[in-house]
Amino acid sequence: MPLVRVHNFSISLDGYGSGEPQSLESPFGHAGQRLHEWMFATSFWDRESGQCGVDAVFAGRHEVGFGAEIMGANKFGPPGWQDDPDWRGWWGEDPPFHTPTYVLTHRPRPPLEMAGGTTFHFLDASPAEALAVAREAAGDLDVRLGGGASVVRDFVAAGLVDHLHLVVVPIVLGRGARLWDGLEALEDTFDIESVSSPSGVIHLTFTRRG
Amino acid sequence: MPLVRVHNFSISLDGYGSGEPQSLESPFGHAGQRLHEWMFATSFWDRESGQCGVDAVFAGRHEVGFGAEIMGANKFGPPGWQDDPDWRGWWGEDPPFHTPTYVLTHRPRPPLEMAGGTTFHFLDASPAEALAVAREAAGDLDVRLGGGASVVRDFVAAGLVDHLHLVVVPIVLGRGARLWDGLEALEDTFDIESVSSPSGVIHLTFTRRG
Repeated sequence: MPLVRVHNFSISLDGYGSGEPQSLESPFGHAGQRLHEWMFATSFWDRESGQCGVDAVFAGRHEVGFGAEIMGANKFGPPGWQDDPDWRGWWGEDPPFHTPTYVLTHRPRPPLEMAGGTTFHFLDASPAEALAVAREAAGDLDVRLGGGASVVRDFVAAGLVDHLHLVVVPIVLGRGARLWDGLEALEDTFDIESVSSPSGVIHLTFTRRG
Repeated sequence: MPLVRVHNFSISLDGYGSGEPQSLESPFGHAGQRLHEWMFATSFWDRESGQCGVDAVFAGRHEVGFGAEIMGANKFGPPGWQDDPDWRGWWGEDPPFHTPTYVLTHRPRPPLEMAGGTTFHFLDASPAEALAVAREAAGDLDVRLGGGASVVRDFVAAGLVDHLHLVVVPIVLGRGARLWDGLEALEDTFDIESVSSPSGVIHLTFTRRG
């Protein structure tokens, strides 16, 4: 059975996956790039001069074995992108997904075929409905859940996530999109492991019990 | 210069230092003992059969070099203890503080002299005022800040804490007394380090920059 996996989802010590306000200039609000600097320093991001330790090993799992991605509207573009018919995502003409990619939005639009195998499909659907569509597209491969915080939260709360990899970055954001709300007693359904990296971040993995 | 230190302050993944509701029967509310089981398994707690690894080493720092403790009203007793003139704390006649111990409360009462060197003093005072009194009593020794969450938060926000040791326990409480509120950008004034323990908890240390 293919899995639903979340990788490299970075949060602050106080559990925010993004700062605020989010905008075209600041996709992560006042967090800036601080939630993701750990990744930029890895060979996953910079093959020639990045480090190849625990951060890189975790980061690289983002690429392996996926046949589809699901993401929330807030990951696809800045607030208001639905009003811009020309918005094609943050990632240029060759986005790093290379599979069918399902964007959850209450204002769907026709699919966008990009280079490199990525096609964006826009769905107004519940987590379970969206997952059924993505699983169909992914075939024998896994489905990546790409975030943001509210999408991860909703899918986890609905019992739809098998593997969850969080990266706790040692900053306190104080405000933004918080991951943890509504996930009380997550330890009852997941095995939780942590490892501290020399870079200062903490990798947390949640494995759903069989 | 003596330091102000917090040791062994346990929080859930989502940042709660206690569950709810707190009561005589359940001092930590629905968290039960889960925030502190890591400590019960150490030689700090059980000298003969506890483990002596990283959890024990951190836990033992709670005892070393203190001349006074400050704690909040919610640490001293269950909600409503102020209405019980016979309440003498949770810890029996020989509490584990062995120094003057200052309880912050808006309803002070006369000091309580216990066995083993602990005397409880009751102060209606700001963090800075309480700390001045505690420093005076501690002399050349450090002052321990004992919690709970709101007291740690208030003292950290006021810039009065030098060393902060948090223990992140891999549970999601969902509700209770949250540590992080109002501490945005803590990383600007503290160096932050983390280490994962084989027990599953994560030790976070915050060292105030000089």
